[in-house]
Amino acid sequence: MSSIIRCALFGSRRLHHPALNAVRAMSASGPTPPFTTLSISQPATHVTHVELHRPQKYNSMNKVFWSEMVECFNQIAEDPECRAVVFSAAGKIFTSGVDIMDMAGEILSPDGDDTARKSWQTRHIIIKHQKTFSVIEKCPKPVVVAVQGPCIGAGVDLITACDIRLCTKDAWFQVKEVDVGLAADVGTLQRLPSAIGSRSLVNELALTARKMFSDEAMSCGLVSRVLPDKETMLTAAMEIAVEIAARSPVAVQGTKINLVYSRDHSVSESLDYMATWNMSMLQTNDLMKSAQAAMEKKNLKDVPFSNL
Amino acid sequence: MSSIIRCALFGSRRLHHPALNAVRAMSASGPTPPFTTLSISQPATHVTHVELHRPQKYNSMNKVFWSEMVECFNQIAEDPECRAVVFSAAGKIFTSGVDIMDMAGEILSPDGDDTARKSWQTRHIIIKHQKTFSVIEKCPKPVVVAVQGPCIGAGVDLITACDIRLCTKDAWFQVKEVDVGLAADVGTLQRLPSAIGSRSLVNELALTARKMFSDEAMSCGLVSRVLPDKETMLTAAMEIAVEIAARSPVAVQGTKINLVYSRDHSVSESLDYMATWNMSMLQTNDLMKSAQAAMEKKNLKDVPFSNL
Amino acid sequence: MSSIIRCALFGSRRLHHPALNAVRAMSASGPTPPFTTLSISQPATHVTHVELHRPQKYNSMNKVFWSEMVECFNQIAEDPECRAVVFSAAGKIFTSGVDIMDMAGEILSPDGDDTARKSWQTRHIIIKHQKTFSVIEKCPKPVVVAVQGPCIGAGVDLITACDIRLCTKDAWFQVKEVDVGLAADVGTLQRLPSAIGSRSLVNELALTARKMFSDEAMSCGLVSRVLPDKETMLTAAMEIAVEIAARSPVAVQGTKINLVYSRDHSVSESLDYMATWNMSMLQTNDLMKSAQAAMEKKNLKDVPFSNL
Amino acid sequence: MSSIIRCALFGSRRLHHPALNAVRAMSASGPTPPFTTLSISQPATHVTHVELHRPQKYNSMNKVFWSEMVECFNQIAEDPECRAVVFSAAGKIFTSGVDIMDMAGEILSPDGDDTARKSWQTRHIIIKHQKTFSVIEKCPKPVVVAVQGPCIGAGVDLITACDIRLCTKDAWFQVKEVDVGLAADVGTLQRLPSAIGSRSLVNELALTARKMFSDEAMSCGLVSRVLPDKETMLTAAMEIAVEIAARSPVAVQGTKINLVYSRDHSVSESLDYMATWNMSMLQTNDLMKSAQAAMEKKNLKDVPFSNL
Amino acid sequence: MSSIIRCALFGSRRLHHPALNAVRAMSASGPTPPFTTLSISQPATHVTHVELHRPQKYNSMNKVFWSEMVECFNQIAEDPECRAVVFSAAGKIFTSGVDIMDMAGEILSPDGDDTARKSWQTRHIIIKHQKTFSVIEKCPKPVVVAVQGPCIGAGVDLITACDIRLCTKDAWFQVKEVDVGLAADVGTLQRLPSAIGSRSLVNELALTARKMFSDEAMSCGLVSRVLPDKETMLTAAMEIAVEIAARSPVAVQGTKINLVYSRDHSVSESLDYMATWNMSMLQTNDLMKSAQAAMEKKNLKDVPFSNL
Amino acid sequence: MSSIIRCALFGSRRLHHPALNAVRAMSASGPTPPFTTLSISQPATHVTHVELHRPQKYNSMNKVFWSEMVECFNQIAEDPECRAVVFSAAGKIFTSGVDIMDMAGEILSPDGDDTARKSWQTRHIIIKHQKTFSVIEKCPKPVVVAVQGPCIGAGVDLITACDIRLCTKDAWFQVKEVDVGLAADVGTLQRLPSAIGSRSLVNELALTARKMFSDEAMSCGLVSRVLPDKETMLTAAMEIAVEIAARSPVAVQGTKINLVYSRDHSVSESLDYMATWNMSMLQTNDLMKSAQAAMEKKNLKDVPFSNL
Repeated sequence: MSSIIRCALFGSRRLHHPALNAVRAMSASGPTPPFTTLSISQPATHVTHVELHRPQKYNSMNKVFWSEMVECFNQIAEDPECRAVVFSAAGKIFTSGVDIMDMAGEILSPDGDDTARKSWQTRHIIIKHQKTFSVIEKCPKPVVVAVQGPCIGAGVDLITACDIRLCTKDAWFQVKEVDVGLAADVGTLQRLPSAIGSRSLVNELALTARKMFSDEAMSCGLVSRVLPDKETMLTAAMEIAVEIAARSPVAVQGTKINLVYSRDHSVSESLDYMATWNMSMLQTNDLMKSAQAAMEKKNLKDVPFSNL
Repeated sequence: MSSIIRCALFGSRRLHHPALNAVRAMSASGPTPPFTTLSISQPATHVTHVELHRPQKYNSMNKVFWSEMVECFNQIAEDPECRAVVFSAAGKIFTSGVDIMDMAGEILSPDGDDTARKSWQTRHIIIKHQKTFSVIEKCPKPVVVAVQGPCIGAGVDLITACDIRLCTKDAWFQVKEVDVGLAADVGTLQRLPSAIGSRSLVNELALTARKMFSDEAMSCGLVSRVLPDKETMLTAAMEIAVEIAARSPVAVQGTKINLVYSRDHSVSESLDYMATWNMSMLQTNDLMKSAQAAMEKKNLKDVPFSNL
Repeated sequence: MSSIIRCALFGSRRLHHPALNAVRAMSASGPTPPFTTLSISQPATHVTHVELHRPQKYNSMNKVFWSEMVECFNQIAEDPECRAVVFSAAGKIFTSGVDIMDMAGEILSPDGDDTARKSWQTRHIIIKHQKTFSVIEKCPKPVVVAVQGPCIGAGVDLITACDIRLCTKDAWFQVKEVDVGLAADVGTLQRLPSAIGSRSLVNELALTARKMFSDEAMSCGLVSRVLPDKETMLTAAMEIAVEIAARSPVAVQGTKINLVYSRDHSVSESLDYMATWNMSMLQTNDLMKSAQAAMEKKNLKDVPFSNL
Repeated sequence: MSSIIRCALFGSRRLHHPALNAVRAMSASGPTPPFTTLSISQPATHVTHVELHRPQKYNSMNKVFWSEMVECFNQIAEDPECRAVVFSAAGKIFTSGVDIMDMAGEILSPDGDDTARKSWQTRHIIIKHQKTFSVIEKCPKPVVVAVQGPCIGAGVDLITACDIRLCTKDAWFQVKEVDVGLAADVGTLQRLPSAIGSRSLVNELALTARKMFSDEAMSCGLVSRVLPDKETMLTAAMEIAVEIAARSPVAVQGTKINLVYSRDHSVSESLDYMATWNMSMLQTNDLMKSAQAAMEKKNLKDVPFSNL
Repeated sequence: MSSIIRCALFGSRRLHHPALNAVRAMSASGPTPPFTTLSISQPATHVTHVELHRPQKYNSMNKVFWSEMVECFNQIAEDPECRAVVFSAAGKIFTSGVDIMDMAGEILSPDGDDTARKSWQTRHIIIKHQKTFSVIEKCPKPVVVAVQGPCIGAGVDLITACDIRLCTKDAWFQVKEVDVGLAADVGTLQRLPSAIGSRSLVNELALTARKMFSDEAMSCGLVSRVLPDKETMLTAAMEIAVEIAARSPVAVQGTKINLVYSRDHSVSESLDYMATWNMSMLQTNDLMKSAQAAMEKKNLKDVPFSNL
Repeated sequence: MSSIIRCALFGSRRLHHPALNAVRAMSASGPTPPFTTLSISQPATHVTHVELHRPQKYNSMNKVFWSEMVECFNQIAEDPECRAVVFSAAGKIFTSGVDIMDMAGEILSPDGDDTARKSWQTRHIIIKHQKTFSVIEKCPKPVVVAVQGPCIGAGVDLITACDIRLCTKDAWFQVKEVDVGLAADVGTLQRLPSAIGSRSLVNELALTARKMFSDEAMSCGLVSRVLPDKETMLTAAMEIAVEIAARSPVAVQGTKINLVYSRDHSVSESLDYMATWNMSMLQTNDLMKSAQAAMEKKNLKDVPFSNL
């Protein structure tokens, strides 16, 4: 585990609670230093909880957030103790999207002596911001995201980079970008089409910026479960994360990596990559441990898999 | 605007009506010269309405239709006044597909001294017909299609090339091609699989030619809304088009172009393209105008964006 | 028709029954020699029925099954009499997945003097097993699969390689692999994401190994129909297969080949391939025969298309 | 043959001369109406000669040239009489590249109210200009280009889109674009790397704009032959074109199309496309005619292949 | 080693000779049963020699050859004793290409009731013949090919699928297909462009069917060495094969597989695949053995690497 | 400019010397802090010189080198003052490749409780080392590499990631990896095939590990110039770098980025990307400045382009 995250964790919140306590523990009272927009905790063994914590600012994404996310998920990627992640947001609003006040300068008046140089600078900025959400996808640990209330603009970019999406009944989603004069450029237009099954709906959402409520989010497949309220949702998210964390990290992380790979490649390319991946990954003790647990009808949570 | 479309419009139909009048205006009394199968009008500011108009022939697609579509959409692509398109069909039947009587000769007896030359000629014809629907996709202005009654064979090829699909309760869809001895070759087999979420259903429709009714079209995601009747549907289509047309054309058309791009590329390719696209497109006054409208709680319809 | 399949068929089961009889005939009393895990029959003209037949072993997949499948589907691919396939499983359980007892040795202790050589051997084994299901996809005849009861682990790999999926009300599906310590490597991670519309659901299923029941399988699009019981389901599967088999094999098999192609290529690549494909395939007498049948309102089942 | 090209040809220059006369005939006295920058002739059966004809302006490429090329090559593509093309330039200089005086306005001050709209307009212009050379590649008839003296800037974009390149001893090539402040955007950066074998050389040429002389052009593979002077070179180009034109057009044009395809696809993709292409193209009488000619030791020039 | 190849070898020719003897041994007196067109021997440890042996028929490729090649190279791929292959041809002529007399029927009059069915059959045949040379590429053991005299038509398809090409001074190469009325469809158009550096030359060879002699084959990079006569060439080929066979088979075969992969993928894809490949392949004892040999200045030929 | 590089430069070596002095200045007396394996200087305006400086260790690549390279080139990428880079190595030997003593531990005994975990760790290490050379390619400033004496193993990986390659007469190149029991995994197998024109040669070099001397490196296109000795070579490298640095950085860096893009994409993809790139980049003052310089026959070195 990286020292920053370790330092973030060693307050009072990283004991192994039973599920409900765990969820209660997930309501952080503030960001965990050195982060100022994120609160990190470990509500259960091998599970890391990342909470977007700027509730007083509607969890809008300011400059600092964009780089803290990269630092945070790079560390999670390296942390052998972490095997699953829950991402949520403090308060009643998941996020209002970009904190325009904080970000406008950079975007509206890029440096540069002429259009070419301003464009160069702008491209630099966009690529940097794309990385903020791509780290979630590149992190081999599965990320379960839990959305309550409004999830607007860059919030949709964020959640489409997560692996499993849950929401509350009162959640709604809005691909807001055309309303403010731009095409969504940090992930929504790239990931939403493969996240949900109806291309007509993807286009409608992105071209009209209309809100989509939880029931439609469920029926179109953006989320895989709708829960009545935030607490229930966090419990459900935790349960999923705990299930994942209980399984062999070799199996789980290989599964995520190959699922992402197959989204972007043909089936035959993906089968080839998979075979090349598993030629070593099948040589793991976890196979025998898992098989034995199955035969002995033991719960996988009680099987001690080595860290990866 | 191209002169042909301009000439088509300057009869009585292009004033800015309130919504309902607009829709009434959309029931054209006949094709707009120089077109003989299409009726073009401008029911609202920045919105072009294209109506397939051969109701006495079940809106079947004759030779002339296939080239008029190309001419029409190429002109729409170039027309700076147009920012959104509604496509519909006159009468009670969306389309019965290819007008076999008119087209059979070309397909059944291609020119050529031997099989190779006949095949060469046939390929030429297929590619030409594929272009008829690909122009819809290449046109950067979003196209909302509204389907009533039967939409058969080439009709499915057509609508899968549109961006947003609505239909009436009495609509049904049929990938008819296997019934007449051929594999669908002008778009259905290529675009339907990414339009809807169930591959099993795609295969069933294409391999058995069974009809799919509006409720299944909705639940599988082929259409994003089912409306009770044609007039209501056209109103809904118009409203969507008006919403789109009210937004920054830089934002809207960049969104369509990048949505089409991301369908055919990996996420990382698409993010790279997006960044390269937006490095200039973010340098638009529309950002400031949109932001200001948001702050002043003004309706975007009242914001005068320059043409693109 | 290959001699092995021919020999498998020339017992008592290959007469042309009316639908119900056909389905009854589909409950085989045992594997058809030379196969020991598969029972082959021809329940209707141009329809081949392949039944996984190890009910006493929960239809688990032993070593012999993996190679019999390849032999069987290669022969079906070559058999000009066969135009559609129904795949089902004997008894009440579709399949419990890999027969671990029979297979463990090969996977758990691959030959080789060092890790590199063991990995080389393991990759060899994985690729061989991937072929078992890829033959279904490479076979140009459409395959309708009918699932009852549990369909676990490699069962999901199998069915995602089929074209049309039906199931009974009591069916459930489980991507079991992470439970036994590995990432699914014979097709699920590669084909499931394009089979169903919700990526969040795909990830959840693959990362948590939770069961999915028939109603969710229907709403997410994994299956295109749920039937009340096995007999009804087999009747429905047969009807679909009979519909397909009644159509021009040039049209049907060209449709399957191009649907598989378009899954793995961009739309413009796929259109180009389609045009190159159809430049010869449109020069078939089936076009005229089909058109004539349509005009004479004849059932396609009564049109004698030549074998392909 | 299109009427425009036919009209261009029916002056005095399209008789079937023996080789040398043919080449003399290739020194046109001026552009062929309706073209003002191109001179079209038919120096031998089935061979079309296109000459860039603005010698007094160093054959620089003015606005009119860019669209005349598209018209010209689209017509050649459709002209069944034409089976091979020679492209050359009048006078002593192949081309000085873009006619900056004529073109500067469009590029330096694109229309548009803000940067986004100027960029949109600029992209439009670039894509239009890219088409000017892509038509050469899309035309299925092989194009032999013959270069004398300087070939600068857009000249290199042009010749890399041709199929076979010859030059005179005094020829030199210069990827001039970085000297005038831009990255070459109409083909050089895209096609030069696959045209020649040394990537280090490609980079050096494109990044430093240094001249490359004929001997280096030969040794690096940009041209496949260097001839002592223009007349000899044109004779050689004609001979190659005549050789090509004498062969089966089914074979020749299928070869070009598949060579271009294989440049842009993997070997296995290309083999699949080739098989799908040739499944009809092998069904040509040209096979028998060619085989018979071979057995009778007849020259292929005396074999009457049907037009394609 | 497969039993067929083993049986082919256990006559008198598989002892470990010093180099020259080895080469002498390579002049087989006839095909090795069960093959009728190929002679198999083992001229040195871990080196297999495959000789095309129909000298009295100019080593033309008859029906039997096309399937014997597949059988032969599939067995070589599986034979752990073989680590490098030399491919050569008996007599003075490498090959005259397809044995037209033997093959014409199948190609000129494919079975089938209409054009579509004939095309289907033709495609089947082409794909089968493509496999004959693709097995060379898929075989992980490097193949050194040695060409003397004429190498015509399908001979070029064959050698471009080999890894290292040598030829004699009197060798010449001819992409003959356009001369007989077809586009080369079993590998030349797909592999030649990436085999040599000059695209202009590739096009010229394929479009005009002109002969290319050994000096040009050397300067364009088709062959990497020209030797004065057949015996010297075979010695050189043997030396290369022996060098390769002396090295770690884990290293060598991984190198071939990744070189083929990188030809068909982007650099970043290839680096990813390489890392996934080597994560297990670096865990080999061969690293230590090789390093030790280097430190002890031992010849690698004396290092006993385990078979793969 | 980053502070680290700035600090490295502000000793005595960053004045603008005339060419020869510049080159003399390039023989650094030792690494520039904070680097311990690299010496950084600025021998001419806008030109950065990076020298691999471990001559006493044959410039072998130790652990520290692999990360210093990343740091160094990331900073160069960000440094607006730098427009071209010369990479060379101190002393008489370019590099002996990996410093095995320093690196062996990490590679030979990766951490991990089982094979899967060791493999995971190994993959991590390989990817990290691949980045060391990929940063050269991702840095938009062109890199000219100058090679003297032996360039072995990882040295070849390094130089193939550079843009322009020069060498001395006594230089030789060796893809050494198979000699030490592994497949080259940090770039050679991926980049060498597109760097040089002869695939047979690439395969021979990689499969036999034989040395290639400067004349063959020149004729195959690996280097674009051979110079008699190191000083002359450095002068030539400097001249190229100075030429590049004198040109518009918008033009030069856009050229590099699009050349790398086109290596990995089809021509039509690359043309589309180029148009999207240049839609903004053509809106640069550098166009006018360059055009004016051309008209006034001014040397581009005297034109003050703004930094990028």
